[in-house]
Amino acid sequence: MTQHWIEETLYDSWGQRFRITKELARTKSPFQDIVVFESDSHGRVLMLDGVVQITERDEFVYQEMLTHVPLFTHGAPRSVLIIGAGDGGVLRRVLEHPGVEKAVMVEIDGAVIELSKKHLPSIAGDAWTNPRAEVIVGDGIDYVAKAADGSFDVIIVDSTDPIGVGEVLFTDSFYEHCARILTADGLIVNQCGVPFMQADELHETSVRRAKFFPHVSAYVAAVPTYVGGFMTLGIAAKGKSPAGQSVEAVRTRAQQAGILGNTQYWTPEIHVGSFNLPPYIAKHLPK
Amino acid sequence: MTQHWIEETLYDSWGQRFRITKELARTKSPFQDIVVFESDSHGRVLMLDGVVQITERDEFVYQEMLTHVPLFTHGAPRSVLIIGAGDGGVLRRVLEHPGVEKAVMVEIDGAVIELSKKHLPSIAGDAWTNPRAEVIVGDGIDYVAKAADGSFDVIIVDSTDPIGVGEVLFTDSFYEHCARILTADGLIVNQCGVPFMQADELHETSVRRAKFFPHVSAYVAAVPTYVGGFMTLGIAAKGKSPAGQSVEAVRTRAQQAGILGNTQYWTPEIHVGSFNLPPYIAKHLPK
Repeated sequence: MTQHWIEETLYDSWGQRFRITKELARTKSPFQDIVVFESDSHGRVLMLDGVVQITERDEFVYQEMLTHVPLFTHGAPRSVLIIGAGDGGVLRRVLEHPGVEKAVMVEIDGAVIELSKKHLPSIAGDAWTNPRAEVIVGDGIDYVAKAADGSFDVIIVDSTDPIGVGEVLFTDSFYEHCARILTADGLIVNQCGVPFMQADELHETSVRRAKFFPHVSAYVAAVPTYVGGFMTLGIAAKGKSPAGQSVEAVRTRAQQAGILGNTQYWTPEIHVGSFNLPPYIAKHLPK
Repeated sequence: MTQHWIEETLYDSWGQRFRITKELARTKSPFQDIVVFESDSHGRVLMLDGVVQITERDEFVYQEMLTHVPLFTHGAPRSVLIIGAGDGGVLRRVLEHPGVEKAVMVEIDGAVIELSKKHLPSIAGDAWTNPRAEVIVGDGIDYVAKAADGSFDVIIVDSTDPIGVGEVLFTDSFYEHCARILTADGLIVNQCGVPFMQADELHETSVRRAKFFPHVSAYVAAVPTYVGGFMTLGIAAKGKSPAGQSVEAVRTRAQQAGILGNTQYWTPEIHVGSFNLPPYIAKHLPK
Protein backbone atom coordinates (compact mmCIF):
# COMPACT_ATOMS: atom_id res chain seq x y z
CA MET A 1 0.00 0.00 0.00
CA THR A 2 1.46 3.35 -1.03
CA GLN A 3 1.61 5.77 1.87
CA HIS A 4 2.71 9.04 0.38
CA TRP A 5 1.01 12.39 0.71
CA ILE A 6 -0.35 14.60 -2.05
CA GLU A 7 -0.43 18.35 -1.49
CA GLU A 8 -2.92 20.73 -3.05
CA THR A 9 -1.09 23.54 -4.83
CA LEU A 10 -3.95 26.08 -5.04
CA TYR A 11 -2.34 28.62 -2.70
CA ASP A 12 1.31 29.54 -2.36
CA SER A 13 1.60 29.52 1.41
CA TRP A 14 -1.16 27.32 2.75
CA GLY A 15 -3.06 24.24 1.71
CA GLN A 16 -4.36 20.81 2.46
CA ARG A 17 -2.74 17.45 1.97
CA PHE A 18 -4.10 13.92 1.74
CA ARG A 19 -2.47 10.61 2.48
CA ILE A 20 -2.90 8.56 -0.67
CA THR A 21 -3.70 4.92 -0.19
CA LYS A 22 -3.91 4.18 -3.92
CA GLU A 23 -3.37 6.23 -7.02
CA LEU A 24 -6.07 5.31 -9.52
CA ALA A 25 -5.26 7.55 -12.47
CA ARG A 26 -2.72 10.17 -13.43
CA THR A 27 -2.89 11.65 -16.89
CA LYS A 28 -2.45 14.82 -18.86
CA SER A 29 -5.41 15.67 -21.06
CA PRO A 30 -5.19 18.40 -23.72
CA PHE A 31 -6.60 20.74 -21.04
CA GLN A 32 -5.16 19.83 -17.67
CA ASP A 33 -3.39 17.40 -15.39
CA ILE A 34 -5.84 14.90 -13.92
CA VAL A 35 -5.23 12.77 -10.85
CA VAL A 36 -7.68 10.42 -9.15
CA PHE A 37 -6.61 8.79 -5.92
CA GLU A 38 -8.03 6.89 -2.98
CA SER A 39 -7.70 8.21 0.57
CA ASP A 40 -8.74 6.91 3.99
CA SER A 41 -10.07 10.31 4.97
CA HIS A 42 -12.20 11.28 1.95
CA GLY A 43 -12.61 8.19 -0.20
CA ARG A 44 -11.77 8.86 -3.82
CA VAL A 45 -10.55 12.32 -4.77
CA LEU A 46 -10.37 14.07 -8.16
CA MET A 47 -7.67 16.72 -8.64
CA LEU A 48 -7.24 18.94 -11.70
CA ASP A 49 -3.98 20.85 -12.10
CA GLY A 50 -3.19 20.15 -8.46
CA VAL A 51 -6.51 21.48 -7.12
CA VAL A 52 -9.11 19.30 -5.39
CA GLN A 53 -12.36 19.25 -7.38
CA ILE A 54 -14.44 16.68 -5.61
CA THR A 55 -14.16 13.90 -3.06
CA GLU A 56 -16.56 11.02 -2.58
CA ARG A 57 -17.12 11.86 1.07
CA ASP A 58 -17.99 15.55 0.86
CA GLU A 59 -19.29 16.00 -2.70
CA PHE A 60 -22.84 16.24 -1.39
CA VAL A 61 -22.27 19.68 0.14
CA TYR A 62 -21.16 21.39 -3.03
CA GLN A 63 -23.48 19.54 -5.40
CA GLU A 64 -26.60 20.03 -3.29
CA MET A 65 -25.98 23.73 -2.78
CA LEU A 66 -24.96 24.37 -6.39
CA THR A 67 -28.06 22.59 -7.70
CA HIS A 68 -30.98 22.74 -5.27
CA VAL A 69 -30.59 26.42 -4.39
CA PRO A 70 -30.98 27.77 -7.96
CA LEU A 71 -33.58 25.17 -8.97
CA PHE A 72 -35.81 25.75 -5.95
CA THR A 73 -35.21 29.50 -6.18
CA HIS A 74 -36.50 29.44 -9.74
CA GLY A 75 -39.42 27.27 -8.72
CA ALA A 76 -40.36 25.59 -11.97
CA PRO A 77 -37.28 25.03 -14.13
CA ARG A 78 -37.82 22.81 -17.15
CA SER A 79 -34.50 23.26 -18.97
CA VAL A 80 -31.13 23.45 -17.25
CA LEU A 81 -27.69 24.04 -18.72
CA ILE A 82 -24.65 22.79 -16.81
CA ILE A 83 -21.21 24.06 -17.79
CA GLY A 84 -18.34 21.94 -16.53
CA ALA A 85 -19.07 19.48 -13.71
CA GLY A 86 -17.43 16.61 -15.56
CA ASP A 87 -17.81 14.28 -12.58
CA GLY A 88 -21.58 14.20 -13.22
CA GLY A 89 -22.62 15.08 -9.67
CA VAL A 90 -24.51 18.24 -10.62
CA LEU A 91 -26.21 16.45 -13.49
CA ARG A 92 -27.41 13.76 -11.08
CA ARG A 93 -28.86 16.38 -8.67
CA VAL A 94 -30.51 18.34 -11.47
CA LEU A 95 -32.22 15.16 -12.69
CA GLU A 96 -33.61 14.56 -9.18
CA HIS A 97 -35.98 17.45 -9.94
CA PRO A 98 -38.93 15.78 -11.70
CA GLY A 99 -39.97 19.02 -13.42
CA VAL A 100 -36.72 19.24 -15.36
CA GLU A 101 -37.39 18.00 -18.89
CA LYS A 102 -33.93 18.62 -20.31
CA ALA A 103 -30.51 18.90 -18.71
CA VAL A 104 -27.68 19.78 -21.07
CA MET A 105 -24.18 19.38 -19.71
CA VAL A 106 -21.21 20.85 -21.58
CA GLU A 107 -17.82 19.74 -20.29
CA ILE A 108 -14.71 20.72 -22.20
CA ASP A 109 -12.57 17.82 -21.08
CA GLY A 110 -13.85 14.40 -22.12
CA ALA A 111 -11.10 12.77 -20.08
CA VAL A 112 -12.65 14.08 -16.86
CA ILE A 113 -15.96 12.46 -17.79
CA GLU A 114 -14.33 9.16 -18.71
CA LEU A 115 -12.19 8.99 -15.58
CA SER A 116 -15.17 9.94 -13.40
CA LYS A 117 -17.30 7.20 -14.96
CA LYS A 118 -14.55 4.71 -14.30
CA HIS A 119 -13.29 5.74 -10.87
CA LEU A 120 -16.07 7.86 -9.27
CA PRO A 121 -19.23 6.07 -10.43
CA SER A 122 -21.19 6.86 -7.25
CA ILE A 123 -21.03 10.63 -7.87
CA ALA A 124 -23.11 10.63 -11.08
CA GLY A 125 -25.04 7.45 -10.36
CA ASP A 126 -27.16 6.60 -13.40
CA ALA A 127 -27.35 10.22 -14.59
CA TRP A 128 -25.19 9.53 -17.66
CA THR A 129 -27.85 7.32 -19.23
CA ASN A 130 -30.90 9.31 -18.18
CA PRO A 131 -32.98 10.10 -21.28
CA ARG A 132 -33.50 13.69 -20.06
CA ALA A 133 -29.72 14.27 -20.05
CA GLU A 134 -27.67 15.46 -23.00
CA VAL A 135 -23.93 15.33 -22.36
CA ILE A 136 -21.74 17.29 -24.74
CA VAL A 137 -17.96 17.28 -24.75
CA GLY A 138 -17.25 20.78 -25.92
CA ASP A 139 -16.43 24.36 -25.08
CA GLY A 140 -18.94 26.06 -22.78
CA ILE A 141 -18.25 29.52 -24.17
CA ASP A 142 -18.91 28.26 -27.74
CA TYR A 143 -22.07 26.53 -26.60
CA VAL A 144 -23.59 29.61 -24.97
CA ALA A 145 -22.56 31.78 -27.94
CA LYS A 146 -24.53 29.54 -30.32
CA ALA A 147 -27.54 28.66 -28.15
CA ALA A 148 -30.87 30.26 -28.97
CA ASP A 149 -32.31 33.15 -26.95
CA GLY A 150 -34.34 32.04 -23.94
CA SER A 151 -33.38 28.36 -24.16
CA PHE A 152 -32.74 27.71 -20.47
CA ASP A 153 -34.39 28.43 -17.12
CA VAL A 154 -31.25 27.86 -15.07
CA ILE A 155 -27.54 27.82 -15.91
CA ILE A 156 -25.15 26.18 -13.45
CA VAL A 157 -21.48 26.94 -13.94
CA ASP A 158 -19.35 24.40 -12.11
CA SER A 159 -15.98 25.57 -13.26
CA THR A 160 -12.47 25.44 -11.94
CA ASP A 161 -11.12 28.73 -10.60
CA PRO A 162 -10.57 31.56 -13.12
CA ILE A 163 -7.16 30.32 -14.09
CA GLY A 164 -6.31 27.89 -16.87
CA VAL A 165 -9.15 26.19 -18.70
CA GLY A 166 -11.88 27.84 -16.60
CA GLU A 167 -10.79 31.42 -17.32
CA VAL A 168 -13.19 32.10 -20.22
CA LEU A 169 -16.12 31.25 -17.95
CA PHE A 170 -15.42 34.41 -15.96
CA THR A 171 -15.57 36.90 -18.86
CA ASP A 172 -18.07 39.57 -19.89
CA SER A 173 -18.77 37.75 -23.13
CA PHE A 174 -19.69 34.56 -21.32
CA TYR A 175 -22.10 36.26 -18.93
CA GLU A 176 -23.66 38.31 -21.72
CA HIS A 177 -24.51 35.18 -23.69
CA CYS A 178 -25.78 33.46 -20.54
CA ALA A 179 -28.18 36.34 -19.90
CA ARG A 180 -29.37 36.15 -23.51
CA ILE A 181 -30.03 32.40 -23.57
CA LEU A 182 -31.88 32.42 -20.25
CA THR A 183 -35.66 32.77 -20.08
CA ALA A 184 -37.17 35.97 -18.66
CA ASP A 185 -37.18 34.61 -15.12
CA GLY A 186 -33.96 32.65 -15.63
CA LEU A 187 -30.99 32.63 -13.32
CA ILE A 188 -27.36 31.62 -13.31
CA VAL A 189 -25.21 30.30 -10.52
CA ASN A 190 -21.46 29.93 -10.48
CA GLN A 191 -18.82 29.07 -7.93
CA CYS A 192 -16.92 32.17 -6.77
CA GLY A 193 -14.19 30.59 -4.70
CA VAL A 194 -13.42 30.84 -1.01
CA PRO A 195 -13.41 34.55 -0.14
CA PHE A 196 -11.14 34.17 2.88
CA MET A 197 -8.41 33.31 0.36
CA GLN A 198 -9.82 34.47 -3.00
CA ALA A 199 -11.90 37.57 -2.29
CA ASP A 200 -11.09 39.09 -5.69
CA GLU A 201 -12.85 36.22 -7.40
CA LEU A 202 -16.17 37.00 -5.70
CA HIS A 203 -15.81 40.71 -6.28
CA GLU A 204 -14.83 40.55 -9.93
CA THR A 205 -17.40 38.00 -11.04
CA SER A 206 -20.11 39.91 -9.16
CA VAL A 207 -19.19 43.14 -10.92
CA ARG A 208 -19.21 41.37 -14.27
CA ARG A 209 -22.56 39.71 -13.69
CA ALA A 210 -24.06 43.02 -12.61
CA LYS A 211 -23.48 44.31 -16.14
CA PHE A 212 -25.94 41.81 -17.58
CA PHE A 213 -28.30 40.86 -14.74
CA PRO A 214 -30.50 43.17 -12.69
CA HIS A 215 -30.21 41.02 -9.55
CA VAL A 216 -26.78 39.88 -8.39
CA SER A 217 -26.38 38.09 -5.11
CA ALA A 218 -24.36 35.34 -3.46
CA TYR A 219 -24.82 32.58 -0.95
CA VAL A 220 -22.44 30.47 1.06
CA ALA A 221 -21.68 26.80 1.65
CA ALA A 222 -19.15 25.22 3.99
CA VAL A 223 -17.49 22.62 1.78
CA PRO A 224 -14.98 20.54 3.77
CA THR A 225 -12.39 20.19 1.02
CA TYR A 226 -12.64 23.70 -0.36
CA VAL A 227 -10.61 24.77 2.62
CA GLY A 228 -10.75 28.28 4.03
CA GLY A 229 -14.22 28.61 5.55
CA PHE A 230 -17.26 29.41 3.46
CA MET A 231 -17.12 29.24 -0.28
CA THR A 232 -19.44 31.60 -2.13
CA LEU A 233 -21.76 30.72 -4.93
CA GLY A 234 -22.70 33.68 -7.04
CA ILE A 235 -26.29 33.86 -8.25
CA ALA A 236 -27.72 36.32 -10.73
CA ALA A 237 -31.30 36.62 -11.93
CA LYS A 238 -33.10 38.27 -14.82
CA GLY A 239 -36.49 38.24 -13.09
CA LYS A 240 -36.92 38.75 -9.39
CA SER A 241 -34.19 38.87 -6.78
CA PRO A 242 -33.07 35.48 -5.44
CA ALA A 243 -32.59 36.88 -1.93
CA GLY A 244 -35.37 37.10 0.65
CA GLN A 245 -37.14 33.82 -0.12
CA SER A 246 -39.41 32.28 2.47
CA VAL A 247 -38.51 28.99 4.12
CA GLU A 248 -42.09 27.82 3.70
CA ALA A 249 -42.14 28.44 -0.06
CA VAL A 250 -38.85 26.60 -0.52
CA ARG A 251 -40.07 23.72 1.64
CA THR A 252 -43.24 23.35 -0.40
CA ARG A 253 -41.26 23.20 -3.63
CA ALA A 254 -38.86 20.61 -2.19
CA GLN A 255 -41.74 18.51 -0.90
CA GLN A 256 -43.47 18.55 -4.28
CA ALA A 257 -40.21 17.53 -5.95
CA GLY A 258 -39.73 14.62 -3.53
CA ILE A 259 -36.38 16.00 -2.41
CA LEU A 260 -37.30 17.14 1.11
CA GLY A 261 -35.62 14.87 3.65
CA ASN A 262 -33.35 13.32 1.04
CA THR A 263 -30.40 15.67 1.36
CA GLN A 264 -27.38 15.70 3.66
CA TYR A 265 -26.53 19.42 3.67
CA TRP A 266 -29.31 21.35 1.91
CA THR A 267 -32.51 22.09 3.81
CA PRO A 268 -35.08 24.85 3.27
CA GLU A 269 -33.69 26.69 6.33
CA ILE A 270 -30.10 26.42 5.13
CA HIS A 271 -31.18 27.45 1.62
CA VAL A 272 -32.70 30.69 2.88
CA GLY A 273 -30.05 31.29 5.54
CA SER A 274 -27.17 30.84 3.11
CA PHE A 275 -27.96 34.27 1.60
CA ASN A 276 -27.03 35.92 4.92
CA LEU A 277 -23.38 36.67 4.32
CA PRO A 278 -20.86 37.33 7.08
CA PRO A 279 -19.63 40.94 6.83
CA TYR A 280 -16.12 39.80 5.88
CA ILE A 281 -17.69 38.28 2.74
CA ALA A 282 -20.48 40.80 2.07
CA LYS A 283 -17.98 43.64 1.77
CA HIS A 284 -16.64 42.13 -1.46
CA LEU A 285 -19.97 42.34 -3.27
CA PRO A 286 -20.60 45.42 -5.38
CA LYS A 287 -22.80 48.00 -3.59
CA MET B 1 13.80 34.05 5.54
CA THR B 2 12.96 30.47 6.53
CA GLN B 3 10.74 28.82 3.97
CA HIS B 4 9.77 25.52 5.45
CA TRP B 5 6.28 24.13 5.90
CA ILE B 6 4.59 23.09 9.12
CA GLU B 7 1.94 20.41 8.99
CA GLU B 8 -0.99 20.08 11.36
CA THR B 9 -1.07 16.60 12.86
CA LEU B 10 -4.69 16.55 14.07
CA TYR B 11 -5.82 13.83 11.66
CA ASP B 12 -3.91 10.77 10.48
CA SER B 13 -4.67 10.97 6.80
CA TRP B 14 -5.55 14.57 5.99
CA GLY B 15 -4.61 18.00 7.17
CA GLN B 16 -3.50 21.52 6.46
CA ARG B 17 -0.02 22.92 6.17
CA PHE B 18 1.38 26.44 6.38
CA ARG B 19 4.52 27.92 4.93
CA ILE B 20 6.37 29.43 7.87
CA THR B 21 8.06 32.73 7.25
CA LYS B 22 9.36 33.05 10.81
CA GLU B 23 9.22 30.87 13.87
CA LEU B 24 8.54 33.06 16.89
CA ALA B 25 8.41 30.53 19.72
CA ARG B 26 8.75 26.82 20.23
CA THR B 27 8.55 25.49 23.75
CA LYS B 28 7.31 22.61 25.85
CA SER B 29 5.20 23.68 28.81
CA PRO B 30 4.27 21.22 31.57
CA PHE B 31 1.05 20.66 29.61
CA GLN B 32 1.79 20.74 25.91
CA ASP B 33 4.05 21.65 23.01
CA ILE B 34 3.56 25.26 21.98
CA VAL B 35 4.58 26.78 18.66
CA VAL B 36 3.95 30.31 17.44
CA PHE B 37 4.94 31.15 13.90
CA GLU B 38 4.40 33.81 11.27
CA SER B 39 2.87 32.97 7.89
CA ASP B 40 2.09 34.95 4.75
CA SER B 41 -1.34 33.37 4.48
CA HIS B 42 -2.70 33.74 8.04
CA GLY B 43 -0.42 36.11 9.91
CA ARG B 44 0.71 34.69 13.22
CA VAL B 45 -0.46 31.19 14.17
CA LEU B 46 -0.60 29.42 17.55
CA MET B 47 -0.29 25.64 17.57
CA LEU B 48 -0.65 23.38 20.61
CA ASP B 49 0.51 19.77 20.34
CA GLY B 50 0.60 20.14 16.57
CA VAL B 51 -2.99 21.46 16.29
CA VAL B 52 -3.85 24.97 15.08
CA GLN B 53 -5.62 26.92 17.82
CA ILE B 54 -5.86 30.40 16.43
CA THR B 55 -4.51 32.55 13.63
CA GLU B 56 -4.45 36.33 13.49
CA ARG B 57 -6.33 36.43 10.20
CA ASP B 58 -9.31 34.23 11.02
CA GLU B 59 -9.61 34.36 14.81
CA PHE B 60 -12.63 36.63 14.51
CA VAL B 61 -14.86 33.84 13.22
CA TYR B 62 -14.37 31.50 16.15
CA GLN B 63 -14.19 34.18 18.84
CA GLU B 64 -17.27 36.06 17.69
CA MET B 65 -19.39 32.93 17.40
CA LEU B 66 -18.15 31.43 20.67
CA THR B 67 -18.86 34.66 22.56
CA HIS B 68 -21.64 36.70 21.00
CA VAL B 69 -24.01 33.78 20.42
CA PRO B 70 -24.25 32.67 24.07
CA LEU B 71 -24.14 36.21 25.48
CA PHE B 72 -26.88 37.54 23.21
CA THR B 73 -28.84 34.31 23.64
CA HIS B 74 -28.81 34.85 27.41
CA GLY B 75 -29.71 38.48 26.95
CA ALA B 76 -28.44 40.03 30.16
CA PRO B 77 -25.32 38.22 31.37
CA ARG B 78 -23.47 39.92 34.20
CA SER B 79 -20.95 37.23 35.13
CA VAL B 80 -19.12 35.06 32.61
CA LEU B 81 -16.69 32.21 33.18
CA ILE B 82 -14.21 31.35 30.44
CA ILE B 83 -12.34 28.05 30.61
CA GLY B 84 -9.23 27.90 28.45
CA ALA B 85 -8.88 30.50 25.68
CA GLY B 86 -5.35 31.40 26.75
CA ASP B 87 -4.89 33.69 23.76
CA GLY B 88 -7.34 36.15 25.34
CA GLY B 89 -9.56 36.52 22.29
CA VAL B 90 -12.72 35.30 24.01
CA LEU B 91 -12.03 37.48 27.04
CA ARG B 92 -11.76 40.50 24.77
CA ARG B 93 -15.10 39.72 23.08
CA VAL B 94 -16.84 39.07 26.39
CA LEU B 95 -15.66 42.45 27.70
CA GLU B 96 -17.14 44.15 24.64
CA HIS B 97 -20.52 43.48 26.27
CA PRO B 98 -21.06 46.47 28.56
CA GLY B 99 -23.49 44.56 30.80
CA VAL B 100 -20.81 42.07 31.83
CA GLU B 101 -19.57 43.08 35.28
CA LYS B 102 -17.18 40.21 35.83
CA ALA B 103 -15.32 37.92 33.41
CA VAL B 104 -13.28 35.16 35.02
CA MET B 105 -10.88 33.32 32.77
CA VAL B 106 -9.25 30.10 33.92
CA GLU B 107 -6.46 28.82 31.70
CA ILE B 108 -4.40 25.87 32.82
CA ASP B 109 -1.27 26.76 30.90
CA GLY B 110 0.35 30.06 31.88
CA ALA B 111 2.83 29.69 29.05
CA VAL B 112 0.03 30.04 26.50
CA ILE B 113 -1.02 33.33 28.08
CA GLU B 114 2.53 34.65 28.22
CA LEU B 115 3.35 33.69 24.64
CA SER B 116 0.05 35.14 23.42
CA LYS B 117 0.72 38.43 25.21
CA LYS B 118 4.13 38.58 23.61
CA HIS B 119 3.47 37.32 20.08
CA LEU B 120 -0.30 37.70 19.50
CA PRO B 121 -1.08 40.99 21.25
CA SER B 122 -3.82 41.99 18.78
CA ILE B 123 -5.99 39.02 19.71
CA ALA B 124 -6.66 40.05 23.31
CA GLY B 125 -6.11 43.78 22.83
CA ASP B 126 -6.26 45.47 26.24
CA ALA B 127 -8.45 42.78 27.79
CA TRP B 128 -5.67 41.58 30.09
CA THR B 129 -5.69 44.81 32.08
CA ASN B 130 -9.46 45.41 32.05
CA PRO B 131 -10.67 45.87 35.65
CA ARG B 132 -13.69 43.64 34.97
CA ALA B 133 -11.38 40.74 34.04
CA GLU B 134 -9.94 38.20 36.44
CA VAL B 135 -7.36 35.93 34.85
CA ILE B 136 -6.47 32.78 36.75
CA VAL B 137 -3.78 30.32 35.77
CA GLY B 138 -5.26 27.10 37.05
CA ASP B 139 -7.25 23.99 36.39
CA GLY B 140 -10.72 24.57 34.99
CA ILE B 141 -12.14 21.40 36.52
CA ASP B 142 -10.86 22.41 39.99
CA TYR B 143 -12.28 25.88 39.54
CA VAL B 144 -15.79 24.74 38.67
CA ALA B 145 -15.71 22.14 41.48
CA LYS B 146 -15.03 24.86 44.05
CA ALA B 147 -17.15 27.72 42.67
CA ALA B 148 -20.37 28.60 44.47
CA ASP B 149 -23.80 27.60 43.20
CA GLY B 150 -25.30 30.05 40.73
CA SER B 151 -22.16 32.17 40.31
CA PHE B 152 -22.22 32.60 36.55
CA ASP B 153 -24.73 33.46 33.84
CA VAL B 154 -22.66 32.05 30.99
CA ILE B 155 -19.78 29.57 30.84
CA ILE B 156 -17.64 29.48 27.68
CA VAL B 157 -15.40 26.47 27.27
CA ASP B 158 -12.72 27.16 24.71
CA SER B 159 -10.79 23.96 25.04
CA THR B 160 -8.56 21.91 22.84
CA ASP B 161 -10.08 18.68 21.55
CA PRO B 162 -10.89 15.96 24.09
CA ILE B 163 -7.42 14.55 24.01
CA GLY B 164 -4.50 15.54 26.21
CA VAL B 165 -4.93 18.48 28.54
CA GLY B 166 -8.49 19.25 27.40
CA GLU B 167 -9.87 15.78 28.16
CA VAL B 168 -11.26 16.54 31.65
CA LEU B 169 -13.37 19.32 30.14
CA PHE B 170 -15.47 16.71 28.37
CA THR B 171 -16.44 14.64 31.44
CA ASP B 172 -19.70 14.15 33.35
CA SER B 173 -18.16 15.67 36.46
CA PHE B 174 -17.20 18.85 34.65
CA TYR B 175 -20.64 19.38 33.14
CA GLU B 176 -22.38 18.57 36.43
CA HIS B 177 -20.44 21.29 38.23
CA CYS B 178 -21.03 23.72 35.37
CA ALA B 179 -24.78 23.19 35.66
CA ARG B 180 -24.55 23.75 39.43
CA ILE B 181 -22.55 26.99 39.28
CA LEU B 182 -24.75 28.51 36.58
CA THR B 183 -27.71 30.73 37.44
CA ALA B 184 -31.25 29.48 36.78
CA ASP B 185 -31.27 30.87 33.25
CA GLY B 186 -27.57 30.18 32.70
CA LEU B 187 -26.05 28.48 29.71
CA ILE B 188 -22.82 26.87 28.66
CA VAL B 189 -21.14 26.73 25.28
CA ASN B 190 -18.24 24.57 24.24
CA GLN B 191 -16.48 23.72 21.02
CA CYS B 192 -17.45 20.29 19.71
CA GLY B 193 -15.01 19.90 16.86
CA VAL B 194 -15.58 19.56 13.14
CA PRO B 195 -18.22 16.86 12.67
CA PHE B 196 -17.15 15.96 9.15
CA MET B 197 -13.99 14.58 10.77
CA GLN B 198 -14.88 14.31 14.48
CA ALA B 199 -18.57 13.39 14.63
CA ASP B 200 -18.11 11.41 17.85
CA GLU B 201 -17.04 14.54 19.67
CA LEU B 202 -20.34 16.29 18.97
CA HIS B 203 -22.37 13.21 19.80
CA GLU B 204 -20.63 12.33 23.03
CA THR B 205 -20.50 15.81 24.53
CA SER B 206 -24.15 16.35 23.59
CA VAL B 207 -25.15 13.13 25.38
CA ARG B 208 -23.12 14.15 28.44
CA ARG B 209 -24.58 17.65 28.58
CA ALA B 210 -28.10 16.23 28.23
CA LYS B 211 -27.61 14.53 31.61
CA PHE B 212 -27.36 17.88 33.39
CA PHE B 213 -29.14 20.42 31.18
CA PRO B 214 -32.76 20.31 30.02
CA HIS B 215 -31.94 22.06 26.73
CA VAL B 216 -29.08 20.81 24.60
CA SER B 217 -28.47 22.22 21.18
CA ALA B 218 -25.66 23.11 18.78
CA TYR B 219 -24.84 25.72 16.22
CA VAL B 220 -22.29 25.95 13.45
CA ALA B 221 -19.50 28.27 12.34
CA ALA B 222 -17.28 28.04 9.26
CA VAL B 223 -13.82 28.68 10.71
CA PRO B 224 -11.20 28.80 7.93
CA THR B 225 -8.42 27.08 9.86
CA TYR B 226 -10.53 24.47 11.62
CA VAL B 227 -10.56 22.64 8.33
CA GLY B 228 -13.33 20.25 7.34
CA GLY B 229 -16.39 22.43 6.82
CA PHE B 230 -18.54 23.59 9.71
CA MET B 231 -17.34 23.25 13.25
CA THR B 232 -20.06 22.81 15.84
CA LEU B 233 -20.41 24.73 19.06
CA GLY B 234 -22.47 22.90 21.63
CA ILE B 235 -24.82 25.00 23.73
CA ALA B 236 -26.81 23.83 26.74
CA ALA B 237 -29.23 25.84 28.86
CA LYS B 238 -30.85 25.49 32.27
CA GLY B 239 -33.66 27.91 31.48
CA LYS B 240 -35.29 28.18 28.09
CA SER B 241 -34.09 26.57 24.88
CA PRO B 242 -31.43 28.53 22.97
CA ALA B 243 -32.90 27.50 19.61
CA GLY B 244 -35.69 29.41 17.86
CA GLN B 245 -34.63 32.94 18.76
CA SER B 246 -35.90 35.84 16.67
CA VAL B 247 -33.52 37.88 14.55
CA GLU B 248 -35.18 41.07 15.77
CA ALA B 249 -34.66 40.26 19.45
CA VAL B 250 -31.00 39.44 18.87
CA ARG B 251 -30.52 42.60 16.82
CA THR B 252 -32.01 44.76 19.56
CA ARG B 253 -29.67 43.26 22.14
CA ALA B 254 -26.65 43.78 19.89
CA GLN B 255 -27.64 47.35 19.18
CA GLN B 256 -28.03 48.11 22.87
CA ALA B 257 -24.61 46.58 23.54
CA GLY B 258 -22.99 48.69 20.81
CA ILE B 259 -21.82 45.57 18.99
CA LEU B 260 -24.13 45.66 15.96
CA GLY B 261 -22.11 46.52 12.85
CA ASN B 262 -18.80 45.94 14.63
CA THR B 263 -18.33 42.29 13.76
CA GLN B 264 -16.81 40.52 10.79
CA TYR B 265 -18.64 37.18 10.93
CA TRP B 266 -21.43 37.36 13.53
CA THR B 267 -24.66 39.10 12.60
CA PRO B 268 -28.14 38.65 14.07
CA GLU B 269 -29.17 36.68 10.97
CA ILE B 270 -26.12 34.41 11.15
CA HIS B 271 -26.65 33.98 14.90
CA VAL B 272 -30.18 32.67 14.42
CA GLY B 273 -29.39 30.76 11.21
CA SER B 274 -26.41 28.97 12.76
CA PHE B 275 -28.82 26.77 14.74
CA ASN B 276 -30.13 25.26 11.48
CA LEU B 277 -27.86 22.25 11.19
CA PRO B 278 -27.22 20.37 7.95
CA PRO B 279 -28.65 16.84 8.24
CA TYR B 280 -25.15 15.32 8.12
CA ILE B 281 -24.45 17.15 11.40
CA ALA B 282 -27.91 17.02 13.01
CA LYS B 283 -27.90 13.23 12.93
CA HIS B 284 -25.13 13.18 15.53
CA LEU B 285 -27.18 15.01 18.14
CA PRO B 286 -29.13 12.90 20.65
CA LYS B 287 -32.81 12.58 19.72
